[in-house]
Amino acid sequence: MSDSGDITAAVLIIGDEILSGRTKDRNIGTIAAHLDAIGIRLCEVRIVPDDVSEIVAAVNALRVRYTYLFTTGGIGPTHDDLTADSIGAAFGVPVDIDPRAVAMMQPVYAARNIALTPARLRMARVPEGAELIPNGVTAAPGFSIGNVFVLAGVPDIMESMLQAATERLRTGAKINSVSIVLRQPEGEIADLFAAHQAAYPDVAMGSYPSFTADGYRTELVLRSPDGARLESARETLVRLLAEREFL
Amino acid sequence: MSDSGDITAAVLIIGDEILSGRTKDRNIGTIAAHLDAIGIRLCEVRIVPDDVSEIVAAVNALRVRYTYLFTTGGIGPTHDDLTADSIGAAFGVPVDIDPRAVAMMQPVYAARNIALTPARLRMARVPEGAELIPNGVTAAPGFSIGNVFVLAGVPDIMESMLQAATERLRTGAKINSVSIVLRQPEGEIADLFAAHQAAYPDVAMGSYPSFTADGYRTELVLRSPDGARLESARETLVRLLAEREFL
Repeated sequence: MSDSGDITAAVLIIGDEILSGRTKDRNIGTIAAHLDAIGIRLCEVRIVPDDVSEIVAAVNALRVRYTYLFTTGGIGPTHDDLTADSIGAAFGVPVDIDPRAVAMMQPVYAARNIALTPARLRMARVPEGAELIPNGVTAAPGFSIGNVFVLAGVPDIMESMLQAATERLRTGAKINSVSIVLRQPEGEIADLFAAHQAAYPDVAMGSYPSFTADGYRTELVLRSPDGARLESARETLVRLLAEREFL
Repeated sequence: MSDSGDITAAVLIIGDEILSGRTKDRNIGTIAAHLDAIGIRLCEVRIVPDDVSEIVAAVNALRVRYTYLFTTGGIGPTHDDLTADSIGAAFGVPVDIDPRAVAMMQPVYAARNIALTPARLRMARVPEGAELIPNGVTAAPGFSIGNVFVLAGVPDIMESMLQAATERLRTGAKINSVSIVLRQPEGEIADLFAAHQAAYPDVAMGSYPSFTADGYRTELVLRSPDGARLESARETLVRLLAEREFL
């Protein structure tokens, strides 16, 4: 369903391997772009280690502050997978093997000739009251409880779960954005751009500099849920830049 | 200097463009790997928007909890660059143009025929009492105040500043790590691995599954500052895995 109010989210990445630098996170960018596309405003991201008390503290800080919280990581079969227990602790509910999760895993594991050992059944443990999130890759599901969506850390599996979870989300007005690329360093246009932001306080404006083989590149990005205001702000900015021969 | 105590750090990424998914962060992985290499334990990462009150709250939460805090982003010349003012607010000190920063910028800008406009001089504004961090790419410096190191968001510039800042850091015992790669799914070794972790509680152990063109891949990573304990844990694990014909 679609909603005109501001719908917000946070992401919590759980994993020592990201903090040690051994693994580069690829999930933040995927989730950020997906939420942007469905009109949910991502307001905060945190990365914490595989530690129950750290996970519980972050979950409880973030779930009360935003419409949704998405977590990734820590739902595999090994002893360092602590997310289900941490979410249970955060909500104050027990965590146990869920027969619905076992039923999702059984046929897929049987077809692949993989035994459902006690270790693998750890992946069927979910907090009481959780809804399962299907996993189109390896079957062991994620889950949601309250406004918290618990996804895998492996990027392919995370994406599968994120797509599956999306139908349960209230989505917002798509935030439109336009960008204008200049060949000047951003210092040249900073005054003009600040004055333009002041004239359109309801349109979010950012300036993103980079260096390319061709020299300076400055991308000015304007964002607003109101398409007409955005177009007015864009047109005016293009005119102001052209008058100063920046375009 | 080197230190035997546990030296900890947090990273704060400042930028709407990361949260909107428009730009993929590349700094977290770089900083994480660098800190790991110099024996500083990265414990937490947060990403917040270009908003003074959000930045101040995160800076004050993180700087009291960890030995060091590194921020990236928000120190350019445009109106959406709010980091210097936010750090000043977090420390309760005024922010003004620093003649030392202007002196760093002047010759480089002159050589490149770029005027030091009022907008560009915004990049010379630092909180009172801050030390400057040289920028080997575009001259406009970062700065440190207390235990907080304020770096640029553009990856090349961030790396230049991170290298320059490193000589001011207390560094710790290098955390050694070894890894063992298996061709079984991690569910196969979960029980053995959990028992091994219980036998070596002082060695951190993680299991990282992935799918490759050749099938399952499970990487077991063992980490410890104590090289002898790490080698003992590795040897024993290799023997246990070989006994079960996993290696």
